[in-house]
Amino acid sequence: MRIVATSQHECSDLLKRVSIGRLACSLDNQPYVVPVRFSYEPDRIYIFSTVGKKIKWMRQNPKVCLQADDIGNSSNWMSVIVTGTYLELSEPQYHTAQREHARALLAQDSQWWRIPLSERRDGLVSSIETVFFRIDIESMSGLRAMPETE
Amino acid sequence: MRIVATSQHECSDLLKRVSIGRLACSLDNQPYVVPVRFSYEPDRIYIFSTVGKKIKWMRQNPKVCLQADDIGNSSNWMSVIVTGTYLELSEPQYHTAQREHARALLAQDSQWWRIPLSERRDGLVSSIETVFFRIDIESMSGLRAMPETE
Repeated sequence: MRIVATSQHECSDLLKRVSIGRLACSLDNQPYVVPVRFSYEPDRIYIFSTVGKKIKWMRQNPKVCLQADDIGNSSNWMSVIVTGTYLELSEPQYHTAQREHARALLAQDSQWWRIPLSERRDGLVSSIETVFFRIDIESMSGLRAMPETE
Repeated sequence: MRIVATSQHECSDLLKRVSIGRLACSLDNQPYVVPVRFSYEPDRIYIFSTVGKKIKWMRQNPKVCLQADDIGNSSNWMSVIVTGTYLELSEPQYHTAQREHARALLAQDSQWWRIPLSERRDGLVSSIETVFFRIDIESMSGLRAMPETE
């Protein structure tokens, strides 16, 4: 097995191809990581979420890290790590057009609504507050493993 | 689809069943998340790694969070989040017996050595410094989704 750093282009390709990643945020240096459904476009990642622990934390500390991968098997996989800044699109200063764009991207998957709901355990659907947010990408790096014989 | 909080027993079961998770650490409130291969036993998680960014960060801030899941499809999945403290087993005060225990657990997967090597991109295998570490679990919580019809 060989492991190589991927190009920025390969990182982008993976982020376009997969829709589930793991988003890490941090508060008082306690990290927290959850699975998220996302939609990528150059320099930005869009995520829809209910307001729970991760949103409350990112509102206080907007530094985030998202990891996504495509694992074929233990010697054939690729992983991408993105660092960036949380930006809530529901804040008044951001255009409705951006929220609609995010919604349209994420709605391409008919189950897009399901995963964020998991974060509310009280079953009171009517009380769920939702937000769209964007991660403005600051850095992106990737690794790819492949069988030695390739 | 219904989503329910799982019991501690169900969390343990998932951590025993899966061996790949995502480990988040944090430095100066910048989170960082990477895929890891782990081995769980009650109250502890063992991980083998080369010395890279995550080890350097965890040596400075031992607060960590590990997420693992078992995703059947978008309406049938389970996810577990663990918070805990990094403890390096290679430090002199910790017994060799613990390191051997970690090694034995992780070596059950013949590919266990492969993934940590991915973190070194320079190809100088002879220069790779490796560590075993343990996460002492402080909290563990899980969510499970299942079709409404179940």
